[in-house]
Amino acid sequence: MPKVVDHDARRLELVKVTWRVIAREGIDGATMREIATRAGFANGALKPYFASKDQLLAAAFQHVFNLTNERTERRTTGLRGLEALRAFCHEVLPLDEQRILEARIVIPFWQKALTDPEKAQQHEQDMNQWREQMRRYLQQARDDGDITQPVEDIQIVRHLLSTMMGAQIMAVLYPAEFSPSQQVEALDAYLGML
Amino acid sequence: MPKVVDHDARRLELVKVTWRVIAREGIDGATMREIATRAGFANGALKPYFASKDQLLAAAFQHVFNLTNERTERRTTGLRGLEALRAFCHEVLPLDEQRILEARIVIPFWQKALTDPEKAQQHEQDMNQWREQMRRYLQQARDDGDITQPVEDIQIVRHLLSTMMGAQIMAVLYPAEFSPSQQVEALDAYLGML
Repeated sequence: MPKVVDHDARRLELVKVTWRVIAREGIDGATMREIATRAGFANGALKPYFASKDQLLAAAFQHVFNLTNERTERRTTGLRGLEALRAFCHEVLPLDEQRILEARIVIPFWQKALTDPEKAQQHEQDMNQWREQMRRYLQQARDDGDITQPVEDIQIVRHLLSTMMGAQIMAVLYPAEFSPSQQVEALDAYLGML
Repeated sequence: MPKVVDHDARRLELVKVTWRVIAREGIDGATMREIATRAGFANGALKPYFASKDQLLAAAFQHVFNLTNERTERRTTGLRGLEALRAFCHEVLPLDEQRILEARIVIPFWQKALTDPEKAQQHEQDMNQWREQMRRYLQQARDDGDITQPVEDIQIVRHLLSTMMGAQIMAVLYPAEFSPSQQVEALDAYLGML
């Protein structure tokens, strides 16, 4: 009897290994075949699951987005309001080697999304999800009386989104000023002002 | 007598026209020859001045960085402290069509810089320049007694840098939440807290 292979499971398995190769070498630096073999798969292992490097990159982006969400869910368990928001932001910021590697997937994905409406839409959906998540935390903080500044929640959300996305670039390309501790200090200084 | 052509002047002339083609179509979307012809130059016009698309992109990035600096210089003339800082930030944020087009040069440049040390160094130098500029404005604001929050200048600088770089991405890829007026509101809300 032939082994039944779950297509989605195999696809995820391939992404779980190949995303690090792409992050390290750059999406332009290797062919699909090279990415496959460097990740320890057979030459043609990726082709049946990803029609192009573009598709592989989109899957890699969604994978690191999901990894981030698993982390934020763990870290925010039992927290609410500003404490939950701070924990959420700390998990999105590129504060360790794993997450700096994730930023190296996010940046080429953004670049491709500039001229690829499907990727742009995927990105927008992901950002909407984070926007709503942060709004819930801010609403809790309001309920708790923890925000004293005359600023709207949505302005705080926008500010944090751009700050955290900018940090993806800065941690990789301006590490002298964006070490993990420097990032945390700058973010906490902002949250402290609220 | 043969016409003397100033190499640097011609190079700048080529960049001044081609950067918009690259911004609109994406750096991967066209060959050097296509970029040249779409910008109204002869087929082989770019090759003697740029060895590769990578070099052209680096020159385009430096050109839009210089354009930004020309704008900030004009806008901050006669201003100091927080007013100068606000004017500076408003010129760096992608608040109009021209600057959203500029962001479409900046993002592919970041992507290339991930695996190109020369571009990464160029980026670091440019960020250092802005860091020092913002520190001068903040020092003036301190001298004027305009900053009341217990936060260090360098933390404000880092926070603004990541916010403004993140806004380059958001204005292009998340325009529903990052219209020009939304960007200005979010930034002014932050500066207002200081």
